[in-house]
Amino acid sequence: MPPIAPTFSLRACRRLHSRKERRETGRFLAEGIRPVLAALRAGTKIDLVLYTPELFRGSQHAQAALDLALSLHIPCQQLTKAEFGSLATRDNPQGIACVGRQAWSSFTDLSGNDSSIVALYAPQDPGNLGTIIRTCDATNTAGIVLIGESVDPWHPGVIRASMGAIFDTRLVRCSEKDFARWAPHQDMPVIGASDRGSADYASYSYPEAFVLLMGSERQGLPSVLEDVTTKMVRIPMAGEVDSLNLAIATSLILYEAWNDRRQVHAAMRQDR
Amino acid sequence: MPPIAPTFSLRACRRLHSRKERRETGRFLAEGIRPVLAALRAGTKIDLVLYTPELFRGSQHAQAALDLALSLHIPCQQLTKAEFGSLATRDNPQGIACVGRQAWSSFTDLSGNDSSIVALYAPQDPGNLGTIIRTCDATNTAGIVLIGESVDPWHPGVIRASMGAIFDTRLVRCSEKDFARWAPHQDMPVIGASDRGSADYASYSYPEAFVLLMGSERQGLPSVLEDVTTKMVRIPMAGEVDSLNLAIATSLILYEAWNDRRQVHAAMRQDR
Repeated sequence: MPPIAPTFSLRACRRLHSRKERRETGRFLAEGIRPVLAALRAGTKIDLVLYTPELFRGSQHAQAALDLALSLHIPCQQLTKAEFGSLATRDNPQGIACVGRQAWSSFTDLSGNDSSIVALYAPQDPGNLGTIIRTCDATNTAGIVLIGESVDPWHPGVIRASMGAIFDTRLVRCSEKDFARWAPHQDMPVIGASDRGSADYASYSYPEAFVLLMGSERQGLPSVLEDVTTKMVRIPMAGEVDSLNLAIATSLILYEAWNDRRQVHAAMRQDR
Repeated sequence: MPPIAPTFSLRACRRLHSRKERRETGRFLAEGIRPVLAALRAGTKIDLVLYTPELFRGSQHAQAALDLALSLHIPCQQLTKAEFGSLATRDNPQGIACVGRQAWSSFTDLSGNDSSIVALYAPQDPGNLGTIIRTCDATNTAGIVLIGESVDPWHPGVIRASMGAIFDTRLVRCSEKDFARWAPHQDMPVIGASDRGSADYASYSYPEAFVLLMGSERQGLPSVLEDVTTKMVRIPMAGEVDSLNLAIATSLILYEAWNDRRQVHAAMRQDR
């Protein structure tokens, strides 16, 4: 994988908006103060920081991110406002972006933790995946497995919705078959979510650590995956809707399990 | 408010993508099988249904929505594939859309329920608002108050993310001042969310019904609103992130309170 030279072309960076280019180069483009700071702090391999001081609007965080990059001897290249604008995907860009190397983990990297793992079957929406990554970070989840034809986690919309938490997250990608082969041979129970689940997600006693397996926005779980679950929970719903948003459902279960681990419901029992 | 004639112009419908046009006409454009079905079933005033059978791809639900509209004597206009494509904002359009009247409620409409209300200060993201509407429906929430400069709930992205639940939801819009005047004079406690909240959201004993007041994605709650809260709860977070997505935070609290009402934690206590 050739490094992007410090004398890079702006066009090469812009091409990272395309999934094909990201896959072929193994790189990502992250934009905004929080994502860039998070990438630098997490020790992500950064090839290049791009910045436009005029767009900082006096933000100390933007300047702090740039200073941190310089102190880490990362090549930093100043852009004109127009150049930065041609790179940015968001309105009111914050004047700082970086190009870095995608980090992928393996199943082996996930083992030996006492924390849960989230496995998502073919999530399609960048906002959903980014939001789930953000919640995973907030609930001490050990990593995320992306099964099948998932949205690219290095999509700018995922990085942004994750608020940079993606750089602190172990990501594994695999096929349905790989997951179905791996799941029965690791230590943790596999808990799926479905409206046909046997246990109410809120009264179920979660194990210390487990694999939470969630279906896709449109299709739910295919049977090859449902077959490896050891338990199915359901989230009750009133009203007219027949499902919740994927990121909401995932977060409700992650928090419920984390609340069990934090023993807040136990504490509540004692208080009363 | 003049009705859009059955012999409408496609351009007039397309203009409803613009917020200004929606405000001036008091109408919305909803697209997709679920939203159209939800609007028809909820008794929303529909001026016109637009459809393209070639795009149904054999979907019985699309045909059912069209049949329902016809049985309700709603004008239905067939479009060519190209015409429908010019109207659609999503990829792979489902071949059915409708133009209808925005329904707004007043504070009076919200009173006298024994259900909670969600009040959102200036939410900006259509996906977040739509997702919150969807969760509100799932947790029997009586309505949503949009305070200040909020995203338009009749934005196509909100309608879509709500999966049509918007048509079963009471929506009130008001200024910060109006809310601050109304809040102390209604019956329910006002519970805010903040990382400085005094109670853990998961161990707090929620009242039967309350107003859940949430700040905006970027700014949190202004002090004029914080002043009317009677309690502040916080959602604990591990990891590097310092906040959760707005729709996630709102949904966690709504479900926690609904779980209290459903007494699932109480049931769990008895089971053990």
